[in-house]
Amino acid sequence: MYYGSIEAGGTKFVCAVADDNLNILERVSFPTTSPEETMKQVFSFFDQYDLSAIGIGSFGPIDVDPKSATYGYITNTPKLLWRNFDFLGTVKKRYNVPVAWTTDVNAAAYGEYYQGAGKGKESCLYLTIGTGVGGGFVRNGELFQGKTHPEMGHIMVKMHPNDEQNGICPSHGSCLEGLASGYAIEQRYDRSAKTIDEDHSIWEFEAYYLAQALWNYTLILTPEVIVLGGGVMKQDHLIDKVRKELEAICNDYIPLPNLEEYVVLPGLGDDQATIGCFLLAKEALKDQ
Amino acid sequence: MYYGSIEAGGTKFVCAVADDNLNILERVSFPTTSPEETMKQVFSFFDQYDLSAIGIGSFGPIDVDPKSATYGYITNTPKLLWRNFDFLGTVKKRYNVPVAWTTDVNAAAYGEYYQGAGKGKESCLYLTIGTGVGGGFVRNGELFQGKTHPEMGHIMVKMHPNDEQNGICPSHGSCLEGLASGYAIEQRYDRSAKTIDEDHSIWEFEAYYLAQALWNYTLILTPEVIVLGGGVMKQDHLIDKVRKELEAICNDYIPLPNLEEYVVLPGLGDDQATIGCFLLAKEALKDQ
Repeated sequence: MYYGSIEAGGTKFVCAVADDNLNILERVSFPTTSPEETMKQVFSFFDQYDLSAIGIGSFGPIDVDPKSATYGYITNTPKLLWRNFDFLGTVKKRYNVPVAWTTDVNAAAYGEYYQGAGKGKESCLYLTIGTGVGGGFVRNGELFQGKTHPEMGHIMVKMHPNDEQNGICPSHGSCLEGLASGYAIEQRYDRSAKTIDEDHSIWEFEAYYLAQALWNYTLILTPEVIVLGGGVMKQDHLIDKVRKELEAICNDYIPLPNLEEYVVLPGLGDDQATIGCFLLAKEALKDQ
Repeated sequence: MYYGSIEAGGTKFVCAVADDNLNILERVSFPTTSPEETMKQVFSFFDQYDLSAIGIGSFGPIDVDPKSATYGYITNTPKLLWRNFDFLGTVKKRYNVPVAWTTDVNAAAYGEYYQGAGKGKESCLYLTIGTGVGGGFVRNGELFQGKTHPEMGHIMVKMHPNDEQNGICPSHGSCLEGLASGYAIEQRYDRSAKTIDEDHSIWEFEAYYLAQALWNYTLILTPEVIVLGGGVMKQDHLIDKVRKELEAICNDYIPLPNLEEYVVLPGLGDDQATIGCFLLAKEALKDQ
């Protein structure tokens, strides 16, 4: 029994095949160019295997409403070549097997919930703070998506009083992604996050924005654990700054869980979306 | 078959009894004073009926985790007399019938979902903008609560650039409730919301704060409809201002539903929590 995973990011695709125990047998990665070119690479990889089911975690926005005429499509992405691409249909046409379909961050949340930092919890929120900011949520074993999926990277937050640079989101200016993504840090302060000293006030701003987001997610979704992934979180000092800001914002209003256990780094390194896709593929086969 | 409803608000209790068709037979209301005094009034009302089940929608925060030792308690409310009051236990001890237990705003969301403005929708978010700000959410027929319940009135939002008055929340200063509740309007601008002309810039600020909140809830919860209740929403002109601000914030980033159908006033007047409690009581009897 072989399962296929497609983690379709805005900059690169990661495809992998696993056996029935979800051991990864092979994995390839290539840049996201055009649907024609990129899907050709996906197919030439998967054609080598006799797959039983496939899981797709795609960059968005995507149509997740099974009753919609464009179910399975990537919708109004700024990546124009991919706009209105029938991703799920294209994969299903090639391989006559069950295919699970969700966002890349939902797949990542699913992976962390079942096999990573969210194992044994009632619910798990996964956030990626990378080129962009996005989130996925799993509760009582199920993906949180209905007619549409969350887009929680673009929520509104307060400006830090000492931060004089506006956010750079083309749609919302100083929304969370416009202030706190890796790309936003680069554009706003004219330097790469990797080169910024850990005592620099930029990290104080970053922690303030992320903590506000975590506060809002906490009050609205009541997750049992929040997993912070993505490139920006590879700054080792950042997670503690976020925890401290979250505690300050809460100000004892609600009993926050122990923050070392509540706000955590991924349990699955960078593999959460791939593992999530395998798990979703397995589910799709079972539900067939 | 008689059902009892207890809508326990921070300032008043509303108790009601309905028949099997959920027609309200009798309703009483009295101020929220001490647990001893107020519960005595609750019991003297319900003692007249042979109730089959009861639904409680309580002000919070409350413990909704059935596995917790303090399940059914009001927890760390600023109303000190009610702190650590075993609400559910006290009611169950008096009446040996199934009792449903949730927050007042969750009960209201449940009422609107099944019989009000959310009827036939996949999910319904109910917000009250009154003395305080709070929200409840129902999805696929079920209350959204796990080990804890949402507390979405205290999320962070951006200040309006022309609003020079800080928010008044004792815990978070300029959080949503600290800026936009009826009490906040009174305290911040030194006048009652009822006396403010509809062209006054205060309403522009109010719409801006509420629209940011709706934007955040939309991105995180993806509700199919948002119902705005509570005293402040009795200003007829306000809902349209909120819709316009929401459209401006979204800036075509996601395809918002038709706003006249997406952001709406209650379908059940001020009765949504009472009806929600009856429905929850009926469910509790069925699940017994």
